[in-house]
Amino acid sequence: MPTRSPKYCPVVRALDVIGDSWTILILRDLFLDGARKFQDLQESLSGVSPNTLSVRLKKLETHGIIERRFYEQHPPRAEYVLTDRGRELGPVMKSLRDWGNKQKG
Amino acid sequence: MPTRSPKYCPVVRALDVIGDSWTILILRDLFLDGARKFQDLQESLSGVSPNTLSVRLKKLETHGIIERRFYEQHPPRAEYVLTDRGRELGPVMKSLRDWGNKQKG
Repeated sequence: MPTRSPKYCPVVRALDVIGDSWTILILRDLFLDGARKFQDLQESLSGVSPNTLSVRLKKLETHGIIERRFYEQHPPRAEYVLTDRGRELGPVMKSLRDWGNKQKG
Repeated sequence: MPTRSPKYCPVVRALDVIGDSWTILILRDLFLDGARKFQDLQESLSGVSPNTLSVRLKKLETHGIIERRFYEQHPPRAEYVLTDRGRELGPVMKSLRDWGNKQKG
């Protein structure tokens, strides 16, 4: 049986990175759309404050789950994309979506 | 492409029910142990306040994901178990654990 000590429990380790609803919605958008600008995300995640969105994006970037890609240099404009490591979250997102779909009726 | 309007997005629907770290840790314990008393959960989820734990358990009960089972009548003592509907969260928990396991190194 896996240990549940916060240091070793894999579920805790996962939650430390993605255990936040805004974070999951950011990932949802990047999985669905491939690349999103800050403003795209802000519009999609209605109700998120720019500061909260910024903090969540930085955390995902720090963990190597997303990266910024510059699509214009003058002035510099960036969009966010999933890294290969971020794509490994596919099964988590899929299982959430599948379960959510069952909650309809 | 699935809609992302909060009302119809399956990911939002899932997060409405289980989009909270304490909730995920409660589910982890019930998946691992089968049945847990309030006090067992409180000890396992170190740092959770009794009120927060109580609110999370009630919400899971309301959504039909867990149920209380009385294992003693005088005085009444209950423990929490997953319902069949709760067991449908298995793939979500498994994908979280698998991904968390990869975050070790």
